[in-house]
Amino acid sequence: MRILVLGGDGYLGWPTAMYLSRRGHRVGVVDSFFKRQWESELGVEPLVPILPLRERVKLWRSVTGLNISVAEADLCDYGRVQAIVKDFAPQAIVHYGEQPSAPFSMIDQQHTVLTQTNNISGTLNVLWALRWHAPDCHLVKLGTMGEYGTPNIDIEEGFIEIEHNGRKDILPFPKQPGSFYHLSKVHDSHNILFACHVWNLRSTDLNQGVVYGIETDETALHDGLATSFHYDEIFGTALNRFCVQAVAGMPLTLYGKGTQKRGFLNIRDTLRCVELAISNPPGAGEYRVFNQFTEIFSLRDLAALVKSQGGKMGLAVEIQHLENPRVEAEEHYYNARHQKLVELGLTPHKLSDVLIGSMLHHIQRNAHRIRRESILPRIKWDRTRRAYAAPAAPVLTGTK
Amino acid sequence: MRILVLGGDGYLGWPTAMYLSRRGHRVGVVDSFFKRQWESELGVEPLVPILPLRERVKLWRSVTGLNISVAEADLCDYGRVQAIVKDFAPQAIVHYGEQPSAPFSMIDQQHTVLTQTNNISGTLNVLWALRWHAPDCHLVKLGTMGEYGTPNIDIEEGFIEIEHNGRKDILPFPKQPGSFYHLSKVHDSHNILFACHVWNLRSTDLNQGVVYGIETDETALHDGLATSFHYDEIFGTALNRFCVQAVAGMPLTLYGKGTQKRGFLNIRDTLRCVELAISNPPGAGEYRVFNQFTEIFSLRDLAALVKSQGGKMGLAVEIQHLENPRVEAEEHYYNARHQKLVELGLTPHKLSDVLIGSMLHHIQRNAHRIRRESILPRIKWDRTRRAYAAPAAPVLTGTK
Repeated sequence: MRILVLGGDGYLGWPTAMYLSRRGHRVGVVDSFFKRQWESELGVEPLVPILPLRERVKLWRSVTGLNISVAEADLCDYGRVQAIVKDFAPQAIVHYGEQPSAPFSMIDQQHTVLTQTNNISGTLNVLWALRWHAPDCHLVKLGTMGEYGTPNIDIEEGFIEIEHNGRKDILPFPKQPGSFYHLSKVHDSHNILFACHVWNLRSTDLNQGVVYGIETDETALHDGLATSFHYDEIFGTALNRFCVQAVAGMPLTLYGKGTQKRGFLNIRDTLRCVELAISNPPGAGEYRVFNQFTEIFSLRDLAALVKSQGGKMGLAVEIQHLENPRVEAEEHYYNARHQKLVELGLTPHKLSDVLIGSMLHHIQRNAHRIRRESILPRIKWDRTRRAYAAPAAPVLTGTK
Repeated sequence: MRILVLGGDGYLGWPTAMYLSRRGHRVGVVDSFFKRQWESELGVEPLVPILPLRERVKLWRSVTGLNISVAEADLCDYGRVQAIVKDFAPQAIVHYGEQPSAPFSMIDQQHTVLTQTNNISGTLNVLWALRWHAPDCHLVKLGTMGEYGTPNIDIEEGFIEIEHNGRKDILPFPKQPGSFYHLSKVHDSHNILFACHVWNLRSTDLNQGVVYGIETDETALHDGLATSFHYDEIFGTALNRFCVQAVAGMPLTLYGKGTQKRGFLNIRDTLRCVELAISNPPGAGEYRVFNQFTEIFSLRDLAALVKSQGGKMGLAVEIQHLENPRVEAEEHYYNARHQKLVELGLTPHKLSDVLIGSMLHHIQRNAHRIRRESILPRIKWDRTRRAYAAPAAPVLTGTK
């Protein structure tokens, strides 16, 4: 199948491109490299050095004999998006090509507007390009479980049957996203649903949980094929950050009580879920939502797991509670359905001591690269209207 | 009270500014004049000539002795928005400052992206400016009943209690908007709700029905105070268009069966509703939604009313069904609550023969200005992927 991976330079995009390439698909990767620019601006970088995309693709060919095509493109440039869709004629598009960080979107007005205009315009451009040039292509869009927030009822997969005053309808599940970034994903979801309805496009919206993990079968083939594992306050996710803190001898930092519950999944399952969506496309005009995670944990429980496994490896791990920089419920009901991908054949990689141990070892080999100053949260959601204090001396990412 | 009216050059913004000025408020009007530019681009213009905003303000002062301040500003220019909010220190903002047309947003990729980035960025900039410079100001935001679509259950005012698997929560009412324009309003609503939550801002989201009418107490004071009444396919609304068609001797054009039902209100009630919202502000951190319309009609019933009243005035009025240019349900359940404004004191101006007769007379006096070629729908929502045929020879709006 001809598959475009938008945002194919990123943490999930690059492993997805390799995974699909290895399974015989004709893969094209599109990226703007904006994320590398944002990393520089904010003084953060991935744990392991990441080769330029074209170098990684060259290495992929030399290791596997397989070709991956590359286009540099800003999805907000409609002319480029059209040209790529016309030229590549994709049968599926996996769309990771968005600003992916909640804290980034909360820094200030500029970062809020950049996040929403970038994410919304890029996705609208993809929809318009599909409408004219590839209307039967299947758009696999990465959304997030964070779109739902933490309602006091069970979270369904995208839609819910509501009975009200004696009448019934199946309606989009009400969303309560928790940052301007999460809001941008909600806006995308509404736009895509509408485009499927009026233009008979087909799309799967993957409302993904928090991804953890550093290695896939493909990154393991060569050090130079590594993916951009983040642990910083901007692009890092919870479990990944805890593991880095444990290795760095820093306390694991919980935001507030740490009783917040979220859905999590292994990066290997992300790749499998995308594959399952692609292999089982929706019909023309169909917009469907899969909740893409495998297990629910509280952040406190995750920290305890890392502490326990770290202890077995001789690491003295402490847990510290910080004033919560976000505005979010800390004690709440959380039960979210995630059946549809299992029904299509997903066999989850559940979180285990082995996995955490393997992550800790991987991180230990790169411990000298950990930037301790980039981990603690400085960006506040700000219910009390405190000012965001920019780092006094931002460290620019440079070549060595 | 110090009140800013954003989009104060428009159909509703200008009458709102005069109405509030006459009631003793200190009014400032902000506009980018983009809508006048879009009219030129698309070859449409209001029924009666509209003086430049600064001329209308001068005339307002000479007629009433009252001052209205004016600032030209693009709300997407955050520096300007900040400067205006700091300088004027508004206690309330009435926000009409958005691209207001559904067909405009469906023309092509450019008009879709313009609509969403313009509307979303402008509103985000207002929110950020309030957060820093006027956090207690009350944001009265104009949304639309079109955000809800036509669900098969009763439409509540913004939120709905959902019982699901034995648990309950009050959640945002699920939205099913019918164009990229309506989607932009849904995106705004989600963004504003979030900003109220994290920054303790206060806002009233007025989900307004279809407005009809050409005259208010203030526009009646002088011909030069008229508001920009539209009847064209881009900016015109249903009843206004029917009245112009009746005067022009053209058939009233229903889209499809005409059995679509919508909420409607008189332009005079728009002004009163805005005043009621301002006089009864929400608390800090509160985001509330009022459904702002007074009566529900099917389009077919409205056309019949115009035909009947036209007949009494000697106009031979026919009704014609066109292939529906939109993708929308034509036969559907429709019952939307609209209690909150009534509870605050709204006494509706119900639609009557007298009102329709008065509109027809008003239009007759300007019949020589009707551009018949701008009325019929050329922009298609396009489920079958037909191309949008741009007008062969667009007529530019010029000065006489």
